[in-house]
Amino acid sequence: MNFRQVRELTKGIQDDVALLVLPELFATGYAFQSIKETKMMAEDISGETIHFLQDLCRSIGCVICAGFAEIDRDRDQIYNSAVLVDEHEALGVYRKLHLFNKETLYFSPGNLPLAVHTIGGMKVGMMICFDWIYPEVARTLALLDADIIAHPANLVLPYCQDAMITRCLENHVFAITANRVGRETRGMDNFIFTGQSQVTSFDGTVLARAPAGAPVVKIVEINQKDARNKKINEFNDLIAGRRPSMYRTR
Amino acid sequence: MNFRQVRELTKGIQDDVALLVLPELFATGYAFQSIKETKMMAEDISGETIHFLQDLCRSIGCVICAGFAEIDRDRDQIYNSAVLVDEHEALGVYRKLHLFNKETLYFSPGNLPLAVHTIGGMKVGMMICFDWIYPEVARTLALLDADIIAHPANLVLPYCQDAMITRCLENHVFAITANRVGRETRGMDNFIFTGQSQVTSFDGTVLARAPAGAPVVKIVEINQKDARNKKINEFNDLIAGRRPSMYRTR
Repeated sequence: MNFRQVRELTKGIQDDVALLVLPELFATGYAFQSIKETKMMAEDISGETIHFLQDLCRSIGCVICAGFAEIDRDRDQIYNSAVLVDEHEALGVYRKLHLFNKETLYFSPGNLPLAVHTIGGMKVGMMICFDWIYPEVARTLALLDADIIAHPANLVLPYCQDAMITRCLENHVFAITANRVGRETRGMDNFIFTGQSQVTSFDGTVLARAPAGAPVVKIVEINQKDARNKKINEFNDLIAGRRPSMYRTR
Repeated sequence: MNFRQVRELTKGIQDDVALLVLPELFATGYAFQSIKETKMMAEDISGETIHFLQDLCRSIGCVICAGFAEIDRDRDQIYNSAVLVDEHEALGVYRKLHLFNKETLYFSPGNLPLAVHTIGGMKVGMMICFDWIYPEVARTLALLDADIIAHPANLVLPYCQDAMITRCLENHVFAITANRVGRETRGMDNFIFTGQSQVTSFDGTVLARAPAGAPVVKIVEINQKDARNKKINEFNDLIAGRRPSMYRTR
């Protein structure tokens, strides 16, 4: 179980950390082979994964965003979700809107609105992995006043890290892409995850990029309020300058 | 006048060229100092710049997209525009929706809908320079079934060329960013243009990137129909997979 690895990786944290982001489906693995199996691994927000995360929040003194397989038992649906949790409770749940590839076989597409959660001085929005390729996701979070996009991922394509530079630039938001490393082989599936987790600044600067092949914890200091000024010069405000009446949305 | 330079650069073209893209405001320069001056340089689509382009279309046997300062004499407005022209007529005009920096002092913001023009087998949409930072522009053109985004530019920021990889990937369209090179100093303005004009494939491949400092003509062969298949795997169609009801647009 990945709980132990996360515990070990984070036990050395000395700094004053406000927000920790873990990968998509960090505790279950990714290569599900059936709905039945996915359902067995799925939990609701009173499950052991959330308890583990709350305990970790307590140890570190931070808020955590992490991916988990979520079950809605009432409706018998499973979602590829992310939770934002503090030591007391789940502050928010995001259900992945854009499922990637065979995830569509094992999860239902997200049915909750994109949302931004205010935690202390931070406004945090969540998206998951393949959501990066839909510019509407980060844009929606920016329009909801997100300072930081917490972005758990299990990326197998090579494009996302560079694309997050564009996402942050175009929205003037920070993003924390926490990606998986290594390989997972099950059945016909052979996933090689691209690692290189990345913290990207509102101005497109890559503040930290992890190696491709090893799990690490990186601590980056930001001033999230830098994301609130959308002006890039005297005349251009990236949000106020939009021309929504000229955009097609369907 | 830049007419001569364009004529010289293009006279060696031997290949069968379908579409030529020239930079933003290619004939007038960029560093306007007053509305009066901008108005003096502005033309309508019966002006000499369009005539020059039509003549060039005839010489090369192609369609051209190029930027020009457009005047609407009836309404006394000047736009930073791009025209798509063949040897007979202007096929379409695009007026820049998102003016950059001091352009806002000398031009009116575009008031025409984004549009896609079918020319032979190609579906061509236009956007200009700073429009790149608004993902809604390329997205709108993709939703209008553009195969190719013709993108005249006078870029002074260093981000666009890499961002165009994201724009093409997220929409599965081709883009031709025709950027200016060199420096223009007038009054308080000192612009250094970043060159590196770029042809980007629907799959994010950079098919050609020009040098930063020298004007060149590059010829790239593409199959524009590659842009019509939005599926990146068995389960993901980048356009059909959108979740518009979940996106905020204002």
